[in-house]
Amino acid sequence: MSGVAIIGTGLMGTSIALGLRRDPAAAELTIIGSDIERDYAHAAQARGCFTRVVGDPRAAVADASLIVLAVPVLAIRTVLEELAPVIAPGAVVTDTGSTKSQVMRWAAEFLPPAVHFVGSHPMAGKTEFGPNAAEAGLFQGARWVVVPSRTAAHEAIETVRGLALTLGAEPLFMDAEEHDSYVAAISHVPMVAAQALFKLARSSEAWPELSLLAAGGFRDTTRLTGTDDQMALDILRTNRAPVLHWLDRYRAELLKLRDLIAETAREDDLRQFLVEVELDYAAFSAGVVGRREIAAETVSDVTARQLMLGMMLGDRAVQYIEHGGLPPEDGPGRSPRTDEPGRGGLFRRRK
Amino acid sequence: MSGVAIIGTGLMGTSIALGLRRDPAAAELTIIGSDIERDYAHAAQARGCFTRVVGDPRAAVADASLIVLAVPVLAIRTVLEELAPVIAPGAVVTDTGSTKSQVMRWAAEFLPPAVHFVGSHPMAGKTEFGPNAAEAGLFQGARWVVVPSRTAAHEAIETVRGLALTLGAEPLFMDAEEHDSYVAAISHVPMVAAQALFKLARSSEAWPELSLLAAGGFRDTTRLTGTDDQMALDILRTNRAPVLHWLDRYRAELLKLRDLIAETAREDDLRQFLVEVELDYAAFSAGVVGRREIAAETVSDVTARQLMLGMMLGDRAVQYIEHGGLPPEDGPGRSPRTDEPGRGGLFRRRK
Repeated sequence: MSGVAIIGTGLMGTSIALGLRRDPAAAELTIIGSDIERDYAHAAQARGCFTRVVGDPRAAVADASLIVLAVPVLAIRTVLEELAPVIAPGAVVTDTGSTKSQVMRWAAEFLPPAVHFVGSHPMAGKTEFGPNAAEAGLFQGARWVVVPSRTAAHEAIETVRGLALTLGAEPLFMDAEEHDSYVAAISHVPMVAAQALFKLARSSEAWPELSLLAAGGFRDTTRLTGTDDQMALDILRTNRAPVLHWLDRYRAELLKLRDLIAETAREDDLRQFLVEVELDYAAFSAGVVGRREIAAETVSDVTARQLMLGMMLGDRAVQYIEHGGLPPEDGPGRSPRTDEPGRGGLFRRRK
Repeated sequence: MSGVAIIGTGLMGTSIALGLRRDPAAAELTIIGSDIERDYAHAAQARGCFTRVVGDPRAAVADASLIVLAVPVLAIRTVLEELAPVIAPGAVVTDTGSTKSQVMRWAAEFLPPAVHFVGSHPMAGKTEFGPNAAEAGLFQGARWVVVPSRTAAHEAIETVRGLALTLGAEPLFMDAEEHDSYVAAISHVPMVAAQALFKLARSSEAWPELSLLAAGGFRDTTRLTGTDDQMALDILRTNRAPVLHWLDRYRAELLKLRDLIAETAREDDLRQFLVEVELDYAAFSAGVVGRREIAAETVSDVTARQLMLGMMLGDRAVQYIEHGGLPPEDGPGRSPRTDEPGRGGLFRRRK
């Protein structure tokens, strides 16, 4: 049992495959893709990052030690149900869905105890979709939320963390409810706010004139209206309660600001609001986020990457670590660089 | 009397000067800038597009036949009051303010009848400001709203239209109330929506986590929060009623969408909303705007440009038109290209 199976070869799935291949140590890795849409399967195969792409997901996962479900959230239930009987015991399963509580419940319901589910939500994307829009660097510098299930082994959690690190992302641990509330505020309600704003202008009789006057500001503010309708429905169905909670708070915030604009006697308050929000936004834009910025890779990050690839390559990974490269029989064309054993690649060593 | 005076050498004023200089026929044009902020005056002078930059706006306008007020909306009143006694009869005055009704009232109140006021609102900009952020191409392809006063002569209106065309913008005629309502919907309410959305997340106790999870979607949706606080206050003070009107309609639209998300029995309606809004947005993104797209420059556009430069350069412009270039005594360094009289430049001729 070795290798990675990626179920769903759209933007996320194909970007993960491309990103893994970028690592010199992953040249040997078996990456099987699977997509029920023939167009997607063909286009993904043509990107050159999959060992092969098949139609039946059950054929893809048989030998996989890491399985990534990169399908729409509402499809995850069906995929889990179908795959459960054929996933090898000990395998690690993760996903890329935008909401987590529902996914974690499905995983607990359908997967056997010997399979380790660790949810993922890579906070990266773009409005284009499909394998042709995929990029090896899609996750570079992005946050990657890791949501371990209660039964997942430590090594399984570290494997998923290692996947995120290998793709250049920064793992963040959360529980599912926490995650779903946060993304409702920072991602789903902004989408709804954008959709309502676009709908308001679009349904106006003045739309011909409004659309002519629309400049970069309107385009940016409403850009999330371009979210794929299936993904939008997934989000609003599987994260309904947190979305409604934050949407109501947003409506309250708008009402407060409305009153501040309306009441001419409160002009000083309005001015203070505008100054503060501009300053806070400037700090955010300049990268002041979180409680502190994480400055450097920690020792345990290196271990997680090693575990991730160790599961995939088995003994070959150990050889790589111990010898600073794969043994010579691999031939010059496929051998990772051995000139710089301490730098780059998947296995950065601490001295 | 000839030449252009630009009062206020920030992003807009300096971009207008840079854009005018890009036209080969404007090499001869006198462009006097004026800014009461010394830093802005110095930085604008250093950009090399102004003949000179002075501190006192009255000194800038004495000989100008076109005066551009590129100051914050709320400063326009004071500037008009101060300049009214020194503007030459027959001069054309325009502005770049984001709202128009109030500005048109001030112009009617302060300017003598022999001075022609034609309001402008170039629909271009960026969140950076000041002369160092200015670009010759800032208005390229942007809409430029032209709002003639009741007393403005036809030639004055054509001069301002010619200014927009020379800067690469597309002029659109509107009356002030129409304009103010449209920009409230397409520009000012999006700003308020962005500010409220950012404030909601920023004031949450979970902001450290939310800010870590914020990806491109949140950044785009809230980008207008970076609007300069003085400009934001200008907009909300001088366009209060239309902003409140559209803001209330936006709140109603959000409530409708909220109910659609909340009521699980209406899932088909929600799905239909999401599909429609995505399709409409895709069309908008692809450039389907207005009632039809304007395909080519009209004959009267050429006339407007000629009028604009004719006022500035006097007889020299006529020579340029008649001889396909300025006469040889101008020296090779400052002479516009004469090899292609029928293409490019300010005076495109119809055959």
